[in-house]
Amino acid sequence: MKRFEFGRVYNFGPGPATLPLDVLKSAQTELLNYEGTGMSMMEISHRSPTYDRLHNRIKADILTLMGLGDDYDVLFIQGGASLQFAMIPMNFATVERKGAYVLSGVFSSNAYKEAATLGVGSIAASSKEENFRRVPTQDELSIDPSAAYLHICYNNTIYGTEFHYIPEVSVPLIADMSSDMLSRPLAFNKFDLIYAGVQKNLGPAGVVVVVVRRSMVENIRADLPTMLRYDTFIKKNSMYNTPPVWSIYMVGKVVRWIMEQGGLASMAERNARKAKLLYDVIDGSDGFYRGHAEPNSRSFMNVTFRLPTEELEKQFTVEAADEGLVGVKGHRLVGGMRASIYNAMPLEGAEALADFMSRFRRAH
Amino acid sequence: MKRFEFGRVYNFGPGPATLPLDVLKSAQTELLNYEGTGMSMMEISHRSPTYDRLHNRIKADILTLMGLGDDYDVLFIQGGASLQFAMIPMNFATVERKGAYVLSGVFSSNAYKEAATLGVGSIAASSKEENFRRVPTQDELSIDPSAAYLHICYNNTIYGTEFHYIPEVSVPLIADMSSDMLSRPLAFNKFDLIYAGVQKNLGPAGVVVVVVRRSMVENIRADLPTMLRYDTFIKKNSMYNTPPVWSIYMVGKVVRWIMEQGGLASMAERNARKAKLLYDVIDGSDGFYRGHAEPNSRSFMNVTFRLPTEELEKQFTVEAADEGLVGVKGHRLVGGMRASIYNAMPLEGAEALADFMSRFRRAH
Repeated sequence: MKRFEFGRVYNFGPGPATLPLDVLKSAQTELLNYEGTGMSMMEISHRSPTYDRLHNRIKADILTLMGLGDDYDVLFIQGGASLQFAMIPMNFATVERKGAYVLSGVFSSNAYKEAATLGVGSIAASSKEENFRRVPTQDELSIDPSAAYLHICYNNTIYGTEFHYIPEVSVPLIADMSSDMLSRPLAFNKFDLIYAGVQKNLGPAGVVVVVVRRSMVENIRADLPTMLRYDTFIKKNSMYNTPPVWSIYMVGKVVRWIMEQGGLASMAERNARKAKLLYDVIDGSDGFYRGHAEPNSRSFMNVTFRLPTEELEKQFTVEAADEGLVGVKGHRLVGGMRASIYNAMPLEGAEALADFMSRFRRAH
Repeated sequence: MKRFEFGRVYNFGPGPATLPLDVLKSAQTELLNYEGTGMSMMEISHRSPTYDRLHNRIKADILTLMGLGDDYDVLFIQGGASLQFAMIPMNFATVERKGAYVLSGVFSSNAYKEAATLGVGSIAASSKEENFRRVPTQDELSIDPSAAYLHICYNNTIYGTEFHYIPEVSVPLIADMSSDMLSRPLAFNKFDLIYAGVQKNLGPAGVVVVVVRRSMVENIRADLPTMLRYDTFIKKNSMYNTPPVWSIYMVGKVVRWIMEQGGLASMAERNARKAKLLYDVIDGSDGFYRGHAEPNSRSFMNVTFRLPTEELEKQFTVEAADEGLVGVKGHRLVGGMRASIYNAMPLEGAEALADFMSRFRRAH
C-alpha cells in the first residue's frame, strides 16, 4: 500500500474522519505536558483556569467563525447527534405543538423517530420515495404554523446530498450539521439551534457542538433530567459535570486551523474545488460512474457514486487502497462508493482520488 | 516550581486526574499513525475491523480484571455519571417500585435527586447529618423489599470516604464506582450494575464504563429514547452511534497497564500503601492535620484533611505546588485539603506529599 508523510494514508471515511495533520502534530507535541502545566490535556481539571480559558476561547472562536453574537451560546454535549435527536423534542415539543421534520436521509429519519416515540413528531416533507437522491424543496415543505420547530439535516452523509437553501419558516429552525458544520459561510442567524457531532468536520468523536439562540432555551419544562436540559448547559457553561475535555480541546485546535486557513469562505472555496474534481470525473465518464445524488442536491462533503458492476466496485476499493486512498466504500443503503472530503481532506487527496478514478475508468 | 520527568508535576487533582506516564507516552507515539493503519486513533472508523477488535478486547480485559463472566456485559456510554443518574431510574424504577438510594455524599445525593425528579426515588439511608464523614452501615439500610434496586456510591470523592462492605440486599445492587473502579478486587458478582465515569481511575473524561448483569436489562419500557436505553448499548455493542473512540482507546491502555502491574490485587496493595503514608502523617500530627472522614470509612482514593487555620491551608497549597505537588486543594463543601491518589499516582508522588506534609507541620 502506498503511504504518504508519516506513513499516513488519505482517509475518505465518513466519520470518524481525517483530521488536519498540523492539528494532530500539535496535539502530539503537547501530549505529556500542555503549555507548561506539567500535565496532559487529558489530566487537567475542568475547573482549572487553564481549561476555563481554553473552553471559553473555543466557544468565542466558533461564534466568530459563524458571525454570530451574544444572542447565541455554544454548548458542548456528549452522546452524539443521536442523543440530540431525543433532547430536541424533550426540550421543545409537546403533543399540541409537535416538532416538524424534513426527512432527507437516515439521520433526519432517526431524528423524527425519536420525536415520534415521544408522540411529538410530524413530517414536513420527505424524499424517501426517491431513495433520498435529493433534498426536498422549499415549496414541498408543509409545516403546521403552531409547530414547535422545523428540523432539517443540512448534509446527508449516506446519500451525499446537501441543502443549498435555508428554509424560510415562521417557526424556530433547527439543523443537524454534523457532516458540514463550519464547511462554508451561511446566514447562521436564520437558525435557532444548530448541532454537530464533531467526528466528521470538527474533531474526534466524543462531543456535540450545539450553537443555540439563547431565547430558545428560556422556558424548559421542569420534569426533565438535569443532563437532558439545554438550560443546564447554558447555566453551567457546559460544565455541570466533567466535559469531554480532550474532544473539546481537539475541536479548539481544528477551529483555530480553520481560522488560519482563512475562515469559512476559504473553507468553502477549497471544499468546492475538491468536490468539483470528483464530480467532473463522474460527469465526464460517459456513465461509467453514476452519481447517486441529483446534481442540484449534491453534497460538497460526501460524493456518492456507483460503478457498472459490483465486481468493479470491489476492485475499485482494493486498487484505491493500494494507492493509499482508503475508506471510499459506500454505505450499504446506497451501495457503491462514497468519498468523504470534509474540511481536513487536503486538495492533494482529492486530486489523487480524481486521478485514480480517471485511470481506473480507462483501464476498464 | 519543581518539575519531574518531562517537566511534569504530581497531580493530586480529583478528576480529570493523572494518568500513567507509560500510557501517555504510548498514546503520543502512535498519535499520527495507529498500528500501521496510516491514521490516528481519532480518525479511524468505529465500523473498521481495527477498532472493532480493540473495542472487544477492552471489554474482555475489563471483565477479566473483575473476574466476571459472560452473564455480564461492558457498555461504553457518554454523558458522564450524571447521565447515569437519570438513565438508571428511567430504565429500572417505577412509581410502584422505586429506586432506593444511600446518600453518602454529593454524587449519591445527585443520583437520588434525578430519581426524585421523575417521582421514582426513595432514601434507604443517609449520613448527611454528619456532613458525610462516614458511610452508612449495613444495619442502617432501610430498603423496601419491592424496591427496583439499591443505589450506592462506593467511593465519595469529595468527602474522602469509601464503602468497606458490600451491602447484603434482596434487590438488585447498583454502584457508582467513578472514583474507585478497578482500584481493588471486590466480589463484583454481588452487583447488578456498576458504572464509572472514567476520568478518575480509568482514562480521560468522555466515557462511562458500565458493567451490567445481562438479565438486568431484559425488559426495558418501550417509550424511552434510543440513546437512554441500556438495551440499545447491549444490542449494538455500544456502537448504535459513533462511540467516544479516543476515550475508550485510552481506557484500553490504562486497563492493560493495570494488568501489567499485576491486576487488581496489586493495585489494591499499592493504593493501600499510598493511603497509609498520608493517613499516618495525619494521625501522627498531634491534631495539626485533622482528617475529615471517620477512620473506618476512610477512602483509599481521596484523602481529605484540614489544617489549624485557613491561612495555613492556603500556604500549604502554595508551598506544595512549589514542590511540584499540585491539585491538593479540597472541595469547598469540606474545605481544607484533598489528595487524590488514584491508581495512576505513583508511590513516589505519595511519598513526596507525605514528606512535604511532615516538613510543613514541623515548620509551623
